[in-house]
Amino acid sequence: MFAIACTLLILEIRLPHAGAHGSLWSNFVALWPSYLAFALSFFVILVSWISHHDLMELIRAPSQAVMLANGCALIYVTFIPFPTAALAANLGGPEAGTAVAFYSGTFVLGSGAYNLLLETIARCPLRDPKTGAQAVVRIRRGYRLVFVTYLVATGMALVTPYVALALTIAVRLHLLRIRGMRERTAAT
Amino acid sequence: MFAIACTLLILEIRLPHAGAHGSLWSNFVALWPSYLAFALSFFVILVSWISHHDLMELIRAPSQAVMLANGCALIYVTFIPFPTAALAANLGGPEAGTAVAFYSGTFVLGSGAYNLLLETIARCPLRDPKTGAQAVVRIRRGYRLVFVTYLVATGMALVTPYVALALTIAVRLHLLRIRGMRERTAAT
Amino acid sequence: MFAIACTLLILEIRLPHAGAHGSLWSNFVALWPSYLAFALSFFVILVSWISHHDLMELIRAPSQAVMLANGCALIYVTFIPFPTAALAANLGGPEAGTAVAFYSGTFVLGSGAYNLLLETIARCPLRDPKTGAQAVVRIRRGYRLVFVTYLVATGMALVTPYVALALTIAVRLHLLRIRGMRERTAAT
Amino acid sequence: MFAIACTLLILEIRLPHAGAHGSLWSNFVALWPSYLAFALSFFVILVSWISHHDLMELIRAPSQAVMLANGCALIYVTFIPFPTAALAANLGGPEAGTAVAFYSGTFVLGSGAYNLLLETIARCPLRDPKTGAQAVVRIRRGYRLVFVTYLVATGMALVTPYVALALTIAVRLHLLRIRGMRERTAAT
Repeated sequence: MFAIACTLLILEIRLPHAGAHGSLWSNFVALWPSYLAFALSFFVILVSWISHHDLMELIRAPSQAVMLANGCALIYVTFIPFPTAALAANLGGPEAGTAVAFYSGTFVLGSGAYNLLLETIARCPLRDPKTGAQAVVRIRRGYRLVFVTYLVATGMALVTPYVALALTIAVRLHLLRIRGMRERTAAT
Repeated sequence: MFAIACTLLILEIRLPHAGAHGSLWSNFVALWPSYLAFALSFFVILVSWISHHDLMELIRAPSQAVMLANGCALIYVTFIPFPTAALAANLGGPEAGTAVAFYSGTFVLGSGAYNLLLETIARCPLRDPKTGAQAVVRIRRGYRLVFVTYLVATGMALVTPYVALALTIAVRLHLLRIRGMRERTAAT
Repeated sequence: MFAIACTLLILEIRLPHAGAHGSLWSNFVALWPSYLAFALSFFVILVSWISHHDLMELIRAPSQAVMLANGCALIYVTFIPFPTAALAANLGGPEAGTAVAFYSGTFVLGSGAYNLLLETIARCPLRDPKTGAQAVVRIRRGYRLVFVTYLVATGMALVTPYVALALTIAVRLHLLRIRGMRERTAAT
Repeated sequence: MFAIACTLLILEIRLPHAGAHGSLWSNFVALWPSYLAFALSFFVILVSWISHHDLMELIRAPSQAVMLANGCALIYVTFIPFPTAALAANLGGPEAGTAVAFYSGTFVLGSGAYNLLLETIARCPLRDPKTGAQAVVRIRRGYRLVFVTYLVATGMALVTPYVALALTIAVRLHLLRIRGMRERTAAT
């Protein structure tokens, strides 16, 4: 589902029809907001995928509650191509602020769904009760930081859209860096 | 296939092209029927997925009859994005009744396909003959309730479309609740 | 890939845009060629899937030659949505013959690819040498019948398109029936 | 993801809407650039898939660095349908050179991503340290040849687009042939 959502993103990038103004080259260049929105959302879905994989590693078999919370997380991932298209159509334009607020607002709801999924997983028989409980506490801290950051970014978007957009990416890079450091520690 | 059908739903939500009337924000708001139809169909496909998974757990290897009945169930799932788009285009409009009747009528056929799949599975070597036979009886009762409810909802749709739409969702929530209760009983 | 090709078929069925003539109901009815083309192609891909699965069961690990022949078979499956859309747009119209010839002609090439795949598999180490060799002989007979039938149907399409279309489906039903009979014999 | 990208390619081939000039047959013929671009990109994704599979066979479990480099390789594969559509729309036209340069330029970036993936894999615990290290050296030689060839083809595209396009395919056929020879040697 993550793979499909990633791949569908490309369908939103379209050349203007033949007969439009400008050379092919200038049309390629004019699509920069589409390339940027594509790359950002691809990165977001990729990180959500890694995060989802880390969560699913914690439990042995999903209960129905986990399956439904998982459905909420997946509907968010599936929805991403729509705000991405809205972002691509408005970056560099007069309504970039609204588009970034909608994009970032989608992440607020998505982060809510991931927090819900984590809490249902925390109530499920974990694979390894001891390290599992530690992992839940650690992941919970990261998820709450992400939720608050997205809330802030959504508010900021109407004032400084590009800073807000950078913030939504920065928080994910930060968590990836922490995850990478923990991995290297575990390997040694 | 369930995952792909879910993910394709998002392609039906589209912003009007640049140059259309209204601010970006009012365009986002005006798409509420698309968001609602997307969420409903996502939920329907998710529940069909869980239900399909429960069925496939019952048998060891599918016979050709099961594969063909399975094909009928899958063509229904694959078809869902079309009535969803019709629903999204007509919710809140003068032809909402026809759109809901078509949407609900698709579920009547789909429920017929699931009933057919259940009966071919009941004739296949079951994984555990004793509990398998009990599960078939139990699932059959739920599937027949769903079939009748959809027939009723399709008729009602032309008179009170929103009540009919709520009914198609309510019957699934009811069965999910029963499934969840059984799961909790099995766990204790 | 079979699953994705099946699911993409639905994207070709589209309601006319708002503002078009006719009630919603008459629009649903006027799309009958789309429903028919959708159902036929879904069935074709489903049968190709079963057939592909039977082939892949024969070998232990694919050689590079098998992977390339497999690529030819898959490009055919992936291509199917395009002639399906052409069929849907022309059934019941003055150019139905050309559309059916193109649709059936695609199957000629596809059948060629499946024959090629079978021959590369016959040259690969088979999972069970004795029953594998028997299966190759049996499948080869069916594949050659299909190839010739499609050639005939493509020629006929320009004269009697609907009979030609029925013929392409009939040959698959015939082979499915034989496969089902063999399965029942093997089970007893 | 490779499978999905392949299958989405077909969505870019579309018949002109009803009411357009010309018979259905002449419309089928006029789409030859779309068929060619479809077949080329299908082949490219297929070869990238085989290549990706060979890489992933080398390691035991992906580190986070491998996962991110893998993300770069996958974003390239996912992007392919867009330059394919641009190629299809411009083959045989006055701007074929720009379209081929963009198509081939995408491969330069993609080849860069595959080289990056190979280097992160070379720093990861290999499944079989001895033959793994030999494989890395051998694959690195091929990947660098591909990278340089694409750079050359991108420059050439503006002068002789069709020769440049043939070159991008020829280098892949060459590497496939070497891979096939090695496979046959290993089998004997």
